[in-house]
Order: sequence, then C-alpha cells, then structure tokens
Amino acid sequence: MNNKSYWIWHYGDYEIFHVMNVHLRREEQGYHRPPFWKINTPYASVKFRKEINSKGGYMICHINGNGHISVDDTRYIENSRIEITPGIHVVEVHVSNFGGLPAIFVESDVCPSDESWTCNHFAGNFSPVGYNTHFCCADQNPENFPFEYKNVLPIAKEKIDDGILYDFGTELFGYLNIVGADTNDEIGVFYGESREEALDTNYSYITDYICGEKKYCLRQRAFRYIYIKSTSTDIEVSVDYEYLPLEAKGNFDCDNALFNEIISVASYTFHLNCREAFLDGIKRDRWVWSGDAYQSARINRYLFADKEIEQRTLIGLIGKLPIEQHINTILDYSLLWIIALYEHYMTYGDKTFLSRIYPMAVELLTFCETRLNKDGFIEGHPDDWTFIDWSEIEKVGAVCAEQMLLIKVYSVMASISKELKIDGHDALLEKSEMLKVRVNEYYWNEEKGAFIDSYTSGNANVTRHANIFAIMYDIATAEQANSILNHVLRNENIIKITTPYFEGYELDALAKLGEYKTVEEQLTSYWGGMIDLGAKTIWEEYHPSMNGIEHYAMYSGKYEKSLCHAWGAGPIYLFGRYYLGVYATSAGYETFIVEPKLGGLKEICGTVPINDATVTVRLNQEKLSVVASKAGGTLVWKGEKYTLKPNEPLIIDC
Amino acid sequence: MNNKSYWIWHYGDYEIFHVMNVHLRREEQGYHRPPFWKINTPYASVKFRKEINSKGGYMICHINGNGHISVDDTRYIENSRIEITPGIHVVEVHVSNFGGLPAIFVESDVCPSDESWTCNHFAGNFSPVGYNTHFCCADQNPENFPFEYKNVLPIAKEKIDDGILYDFGTELFGYLNIVGADTNDEIGVFYGESREEALDTNYSYITDYICGEKKYCLRQRAFRYIYIKSTSTDIEVSVDYEYLPLEAKGNFDCDNALFNEIISVASYTFHLNCREAFLDGIKRDRWVWSGDAYQSARINRYLFADKEIEQRTLIGLIGKLPIEQHINTILDYSLLWIIALYEHYMTYGDKTFLSRIYPMAVELLTFCETRLNKDGFIEGHPDDWTFIDWSEIEKVGAVCAEQMLLIKVYSVMASISKELKIDGHDALLEKSEMLKVRVNEYYWNEEKGAFIDSYTSGNANVTRHANIFAIMYDIATAEQANSILNHVLRNENIIKITTPYFEGYELDALAKLGEYKTVEEQLTSYWGGMIDLGAKTIWEEYHPSMNGIEHYAMYSGKYEKSLCHAWGAGPIYLFGRYYLGVYATSAGYETFIVEPKLGGLKEICGTVPINDATVTVRLNQEKLSVVASKAGGTLVWKGEKYTLKPNEPLIIDC
Repeated sequence: MNNKSYWIWHYGDYEIFHVMNVHLRREEQGYHRPPFWKINTPYASVKFRKEINSKGGYMICHINGNGHISVDDTRYIENSRIEITPGIHVVEVHVSNFGGLPAIFVESDVCPSDESWTCNHFAGNFSPVGYNTHFCCADQNPENFPFEYKNVLPIAKEKIDDGILYDFGTELFGYLNIVGADTNDEIGVFYGESREEALDTNYSYITDYICGEKKYCLRQRAFRYIYIKSTSTDIEVSVDYEYLPLEAKGNFDCDNALFNEIISVASYTFHLNCREAFLDGIKRDRWVWSGDAYQSARINRYLFADKEIEQRTLIGLIGKLPIEQHINTILDYSLLWIIALYEHYMTYGDKTFLSRIYPMAVELLTFCETRLNKDGFIEGHPDDWTFIDWSEIEKVGAVCAEQMLLIKVYSVMASISKELKIDGHDALLEKSEMLKVRVNEYYWNEEKGAFIDSYTSGNANVTRHANIFAIMYDIATAEQANSILNHVLRNENIIKITTPYFEGYELDALAKLGEYKTVEEQLTSYWGGMIDLGAKTIWEEYHPSMNGIEHYAMYSGKYEKSLCHAWGAGPIYLFGRYYLGVYATSAGYETFIVEPKLGGLKEICGTVPINDATVTVRLNQEKLSVVASKAGGTLVWKGEKYTLKPNEPLIIDC
Repeated sequence: MNNKSYWIWHYGDYEIFHVMNVHLRREEQGYHRPPFWKINTPYASVKFRKEINSKGGYMICHINGNGHISVDDTRYIENSRIEITPGIHVVEVHVSNFGGLPAIFVESDVCPSDESWTCNHFAGNFSPVGYNTHFCCADQNPENFPFEYKNVLPIAKEKIDDGILYDFGTELFGYLNIVGADTNDEIGVFYGESREEALDTNYSYITDYICGEKKYCLRQRAFRYIYIKSTSTDIEVSVDYEYLPLEAKGNFDCDNALFNEIISVASYTFHLNCREAFLDGIKRDRWVWSGDAYQSARINRYLFADKEIEQRTLIGLIGKLPIEQHINTILDYSLLWIIALYEHYMTYGDKTFLSRIYPMAVELLTFCETRLNKDGFIEGHPDDWTFIDWSEIEKVGAVCAEQMLLIKVYSVMASISKELKIDGHDALLEKSEMLKVRVNEYYWNEEKGAFIDSYTSGNANVTRHANIFAIMYDIATAEQANSILNHVLRNENIIKITTPYFEGYELDALAKLGEYKTVEEQLTSYWGGMIDLGAKTIWEEYHPSMNGIEHYAMYSGKYEKSLCHAWGAGPIYLFGRYYLGVYATSAGYETFIVEPKLGGLKEICGTVPINDATVTVRLNQEKLSVVASKAGGTLVWKGEKYTLKPNEPLIIDC
C-alpha cells in the first residue's frame, strides 16, 4: 500500500502534552512539585477533517479518546471498516480526550491520516494537523514519547554501613531495576548525583522506600550513584537508561586534550538533557526553561542539529492563548524565546513552522509591551521575575540587560515579518533603533566606559551581563565594545560570572571580539576546574573558591545544585561558531560564512551541520582545508573571501 | 471542632469540570459524540494560599491531584500532620491534576479550607476559591457530582417476540441493573422514551450489548421503556434513578384540572433535566445550551428557586478565556447568556457572583460586537449559528430577533454596571437606545404592522419571533405592541410556533399584553395536546397535525426528538409570573410586585419563592389573599397599590 498513515493531532498539542508531562513529573524529597507558572494543556476535543475526491476505497479510523467518524454526515464508530464510494466526500472525525492527547490514525487507500488533513478545536479555522513520522502504526500511542532504552549495570559496588553503594560511572536517567529482594525487606533507595548525596540519606534529594515485592522497576530518576539500604542478601541492580536517540552531526577536535575532554563531557551533559524538550538539568526540576533552552538550541545546532527538539521546546514553552505571564514568569525568558525562534529559522529555514508559530510570537511581544514603563523601557511587574543570571545585578526599575534583549527582539521580529511578507518590518526596525538610542542615553556611562545596570538607582552599577548582550547582539559600537572589553570583561573588579549559562554568553562576546586567549583561559579554569574535581557532567554553577560538598549546595539545599545542567555545554557552540567559524547568513544556511580561527591552538578540526549538509574544517599553523557539502558558503580568511563549491575542498597554505 | 472545612478549588473549575463531563458523555447509536463547540476544562494546576495569624495549631492537607504544602516556604507532603507555630504564616498548597479537578481539603484548627482561602492558576491575581457546602469531608471527591439515588422497579412487563419490554411508567435517568443473566447470554438492551422506540431495535437511539456476567449495572441512560432481548430465563431489572434532590419552593394550583396536570408534567420534565446544569433534554444530547438554559432559569425561579444550578450553568457555559466563538456557537445564545445573568442577579441579588463573572460578560459582549455589520446590527459570521428557533425565519443578513436581544443586552449591561458601580452605564444605555432607533428604522414595517425578519432580503417577511422579543423586552411601543398583537400574534397566516421553547416566549408576550384567553387556549391545545397523546413529560417539539410515531422523529432520525425537554416547562414560569403575578423590581427581591390575574380561571392559588422568602397568593372571583414572608412587596390590584407587610395576609374582596 502506498498510503502511509500517521497518528495526527491538533498542531502543537503533542508538544504541549509532553512538555506538560515533564513539568508535572517533578518530585523532590518525597513531594510533588508542579511548576510555579501556568500549565498549558492540549485541547480537550478536536475535529479532524479531510475532503476527498476518490475513485472509491475504504477507511478504518482509530481514535485516541472518544469520538466517531462521519462521511458526508453519516456517522460511524471507530475501528470499523467504512466503504468510501467514488466521488467527492467530506470525512470528519470528532474526538474528545480530556486528560490525554486527542489523536486519530486512519488506515485507508483514499484518505490515510497524514499532513493533508486539517483540524480545529471546534472553534477557529481549520489548519493542518500535527504529526510525527515516528507514529506510523495504529497500535502506537502518541502519548508515549518515543525514547530508546539500554540496560546499564553499575561499574562499582561498595558495602558501606548497612547498605550498598552502586556507582554507574556517570550520570544516567532511567528506571532502576532491583531483583532478588526479600518480600518483607523494607528497602530504602537513595539517589545521588554525587557519592556524598547518595550516602547522606537524610538529605538525598530523591529517595524511594519500597517493600513487598521480590523485584522492582522504580519510576525514572536521574543519578550516578545509588545507595541501597536493605536486609536482602542477593539484591542485584541495573538501570533501563532512557534516552533520545540523537546522532552527533557536528564535532570538534583539537590539540588541547582538556578542551577535547570538555567537549566530550559537555556533549554527554547536553545529550542527557535533550528529551521531550530541552531540560535545564536532568535531576532536580527537569523543567523546560526558555533562557536555558535558548542556549541549548545554540548548542544543539553545532552538535545534534535536531530541528525537532527545538520546535518541541518552542511550542511547549509558548503554549496557548491567552498569554497571561512571561514564559517561566521570567521577563528575559520571554524575550529570549523570540530571539530563539529567529535563530531557529535562520538555522533550518523552516518557513512552515515559522508561519504557524508567528502569531504566538506577536502575542508574546504584545504582552511584553504591556511592561513598557513611561520612558519606553521594559520593566518587570510585581509578578514578573527579572532573572538574567544568578548574579548580583542591580535590578531596580528597568534593567539594562532586558533592554538589550528587547532591542534584539524588535530587530528579529522585523526580519521575521520580512521573511513572512507581513507588514510591520520598518516599524519594528524603527522601534529597535529608537530603543537603542534611548538605551545609550539612559544606560551608557562614559565615565565607567560601560552600560550600567539601572538608571533609576543612581548607583551606576556595572555588571558584565548587559555589556555582554550589547556585544553579542551588535548593539555596542566598535568604540563601546572596545571600552567594554577593557572596563568590564578584562576588569577583575567587576564581579565574575558564576554560571556556565552566562559564562557561555561571555565566551561568545569575547570570541566575537577576538579575545581567544581569554576564552581559552576561561575554558581551562572554569570548565577545566569542574573536570579537575571529577565532574563527568557539567554543573549548574561553579565557584572555584568552594571546597568539597560545598560545590553541591544551591537554593539552600545541601544537594540541590544540578550536577548535570544543559547550559554547561556552551563550549560546543563556542568551538563550532568561532573556531570552526561557521554560521548562517540567510535562512536555512542558504548562504553561510566559514571564518575559522585557531586562537591559541595548534590544530583544530571539526564538522558543523548546516541544515542537512555539513562543513568540515581542518586548520593548523600550516594549512587550512574547508569542504562544504552544499553551495552557498563563503570562506573568510585573512580578510579575503573565497566561494566554497559543493564538495570541493578549498585548501589554503597559511 | 468549630473549624468547618470544605473541599476548595479554583473558582469556576468545579462547574467547568462537571459541565465538561456532561458534554463529553453523549452517546448515540453506539458512538461517542462530543459537542460541536470548544470544550472548556479546569486549570491543570492551582496554587492555594492562606495567610494566618494564629496562636498555633495543626493542619492536615488532602490533595485531589499531585502537589505539596508549604508553610513559609518549608515544604510538606500531603496527608501529613503539620504543626503550626504561633504567629504570622503564609500557607500555600500547590496542586496539579491534568484530567481531573485540582482541589484540596485542609483539616485544621487554624486554617481549615474554606472561602477565606484564595488561589490562582499560577498566573493572575489571587482570588477567593470556589467551594460547595456538600463537600465537607476529606473522603469525598468533588469530581463526583452529589446526586441522590432511588431504586425503581418497572410498573409493567410484557413478553414481545423474543424479548421482554419493561415500562417504568415515566421517563427516568439512571443505571439499569440486570440480575439473573446467564453468563453466555448475549443480551441486547434497547432503551426507549417511547414504547415504539424500545421495540424498534434497529433504530433505538441508545442500545447496550452485553455478555459474560451474571449481573450488570449499565452506565446511566434516560428512558421510560426497556426492551431486553435475552435467552436467560430469570432476568430481573431495576433502575438506580439518579437525580438532584431539589425541593419545589414554588407551586401553582387552579380549578382547571388540565392546567394542574400540565404543571405536574412540566415540573417532572424540568426536574429530570436539572442536574450538573440545566440540560436541554435528558435522553438525546444531554448538553447544556444557553438559550434553553435561559428559559430553564426562568422556570427554575418559580419552582425550585435553586440559585446554585443557575450559577453552575452560567459558569459552565461561559468557560474560560479566550472567547473564540458564540456560546454553543449560537449568536442568540451568547446574548441570552448575558440577559440570563442579569435576571439571575435580579432574582437572587448575589453581588459576589455577579462581580466575579462580570468580566466574562464584558468579554462576551466584546466578542459579540466583533459581529456588528456596517449598519451597526449584529450578524452571524459564517461559523456562527443564527438559531432563534426551529422555524422558517428569514435569516438573511442581520436578523431582527438578534437585534431585539442586543437592545436588551446593552440595557442589562448598563444596569449591571450601575449595580457594580463600574463606569459605562450611560454609554451602554445610549447604545441600547440608538440600536432601538435603528431597528425601528430598518425593521419596522408600517404596512405589515410588525417587525420584519430581515431588511437585506427585501421580502419584508414577518414571523412571530422578533415581535415576541419586542414585547417581552419592552422594545415595542404600546402602539406597536397593539399592532403586533393584531397583525402577528392573532394572525393565523403567520406561521405558528412549533417548539415549547418559543411557545413559552409567546405566552409570556401574550400574558404581558393581557391576552389570557389566547394563553389558555394555547395551553389547552398545545401542552394539552401532548398530554392527550399520553405524554408524561413534555416534548422538544409538537406539531398537532402529526400522527403516531411521526411525533417521535426529528433531525432526520426516527426517534431523535427528545420527549423530555426542559424548555417544555414554560407554563411554570407563566403561572408564577403572570397569574400569581410575582416579580422582582430590584435585585434579590429587595422590592417586588405582586400583580395577580385570574385570566379565564375561577380560582388560583400558589406560592412563589422570592430569594429565601415566599409570596403566597389565593385568588378567586370573590376574594384575593396575598401574604409575603418578607418586606418590600407591593400588591397591584385593579390599578391600586398596596404595601405588603411581612407575614401579614392582605385580603381584598374582589
């Protein structure tokens, strides 16, 4: 049969359903903890529709939920064979599923369920359905996210006090299997990202107490260590590791072993957090955060280049109307969502996706503009969280870093309007430019040679954050950038960044300014510092001055710091974007630049995925070799430009 | 313990949850049929909050869903005893429950869960929770609607062909119990509102096919007759009749036995349809329809005077933002919702409810105004349904009956603004007046002496509907009303009303004009006609000219007409409002009029509930006696006004 069927649903509901499940699954110290923001859910009922003009055939419709099929207003029950006579017909399937994901699967030689079907939520216009090529059999259920599984055994086992400590060698996420238990054994299972956490049974962040069975398969958890208190003598454990089967399409290698190790650890950290969407950290909250996801998307583009996870994340975060609060309640995270959308489009060029989600971007920007103060600056309302970073930024009134993001937001919304041929480009660009003028007027401090945090307080406090954004988003003039470099980025008196989140942005700014020496020093001391301490995954935050288990504490919890945090994987972006030097200059890498830099290294090589093609760069002190598998590329090398021909290596003696 | 606890939830979610369940429960001829409008659902997560200043005590919190308790940011698991130290504390409970109703129950001597708690949906302001005094025990679940049950046996049993027909004497709604079945007996159960439907097994609207058990309790259905095809020899059946325990606070009795019978049948019909909300009919769709509910609320006020069911209905119908379509997709039903809200307030004076739901009324009116055409008239968009009635109204362009409703809507919204001391009263009244002027200009046809259906078509077609609304809502001048009476209401050439729905409105208009003779003729021929045919409940539609099972057909289905339809109970309103003559003149019957009319009857007596008080009227050709149990009443009799003193009978010789 040529007619391929898929499970189909209301566009966006699959992503919203799975992100919702992620959000509602958090447990800590024995209690459930839903997110502190509004939860979006799928529509409770959906009407699917297909107009056909066929020579006749049949259909069998499977429904996830309750409902019926109608052909030209004659109704049928699900799973029954319906004969379709030759001619023009309207097929509809009405489905309700409160508490699930309304979806259908139609086996048919005339109207298989695929992207040609439309639907609505019994309101609004019909628009194309959502589907996923994975769900192509009637006996699948799109409520089950398609993970893969691998059975993993501990690499070490140690009797400590009245329990056994198992070490799986590195952090995992999965289902713990316990076999050989006595049925009357009251077993305590203590999970740890660190050895200390697993053994500190009063404070382990996640625990399970079980009894009554000979074998168990516990709910999915994240951990490296398991400490089991038990009286059974023959217990054996293993883990059904649950993961997304992502293939690394990008890579980077160099003569610096530590940097290679950082890339390796960062890649593993990142992979663990790539699931239904980009998670922040695999153990603690496992929530989807827009700012974290913004950086994850940048990383993803130089590693997995998985378009789907970016789209799932963007849809899952924006949810449905009405927009009543900032994404994750965070002002900067709303703004970063819009920038992420644009960068996503630039990478993959998926105009269908862009045009479908664009109305929500408009709504989100409209919501953000309700937060403009009398001076035209965006400012947090009492219920809004001005996050920016875990750092002592002076958050009084309208904060400079937020304005930097808004300048960029207006500019990317202008570009998006242009791409979609929607009015508003000039007005948006004008808003961006006018805001830039006002930001310079209110926030640029000539004496400090930098942008200040707040103009309201009168303190002219300078932190790195707004200044980093000013460079990242080309808001600072060349002169300002130079001043920022000297007065902020190289200034030891300006409080240092402590999160890999903003450290990632700082490296971006530094590399952009050509400060490779500083970049490499930071990589060595900051990421290298964690690895020196034995980290197999990158942490949520790192203070070099701390000692021992101090490193594991955060948010007033002894082990609340996430030791496997996606935003730690920033170096993957850094190496791809600045050392291999590959980036898109038009949507979907239709055109792109390759501008390699050796920095302080002797040799680099690697591949960058460019929307179903690749660029491979090899560079040492003698020779540069670049090959792109598609047209559109321009090599920029020592001020010269070279057109890259598809699959023809361009080799230059240095 | 003095501290009474209740299950509490996000205000409105209880109503939305139960109305959603009603809407998603429809089955016909073996398939599920969700409504053709958008389904509203409860919030998936809710944050409950209470600030306390106590001398210390304890709390135990039960959660319907997943979540935790926090006291001053220290978190606890559900069902655990939490000690509260003396002083000021903030208690929060965070709950998620996708697919259910997030709710909590707090046993406590310091912060029992009651109306003093607030909540939000992790967005928006905190506002008082919803609760229901019925749910006052921890082991209850507010997802189970508090019906009562009574076991009912059939009154007759008859062997017909290879099955047995059971007659329960009148329509019921409940769970059919079958005992004594052979386990291998493939039993067919055919439900009928009529004997014919139950026996016509290929066409019975609802059927169950069961096998494998000795006894069954089938899902709740509506029926009077059951026909069971079975090979078991010892089957016995009974029904667990499910109903809302409503007490009739109003009543009416007169010297006309048929009218008394009509009241009795109407009351039973109405009671069967008073459940989670006002249903349209108990058998077929069992959905909640705003226009039907508008009339049900009018009936309710003279029978059960149950404020709660009106509020459940109003909340369940309006749902949540965004408003994307008309209520039930029907233009007139949106408008009737707003009028119903005002009339509800006038009856019960519940300003708390009014102020909580008022923002949704504003949103609904704003939505309706997106449907104004260039002439300023409201008009259906392609996806809107202009219903008005099952009648041949000329629905071309803007339809007159809709304008009548909109005139009334502006006027009641003006009154509501005034009651709530919200700006806009004058502007709304102006809109109402201006629309009235334009309606007279465009729709009043001097030649026909009536309002025409449509000014677009040029046909000057006249039906009863717009003209009835013009009288009901005091839009017609005295002169116009007189003309309408002669040219429309008494005009045999104007198509007759066929539904009790609009027949109810017609009687209202006729009684208002003092046309009691016609009213009584209609009662006798129309309602009396159904009763003559053996109806124990009032039908959805009645054409006196039909014969036999023709009466049961509708919507192209042999038995699709509902034979127990709430809108058939209009005479209850008629007798209370016009014969007993009781109606409120300010909110909550603070002031009210009693203006009895004997019509063509010799004797009437009855009681009208007036917001926790009553008025009892007895009138015959010799004497009038009126007694109200509260102050505020004015008797109007033969052009004179008499002040009614509480509990003091006022007796007048006629």
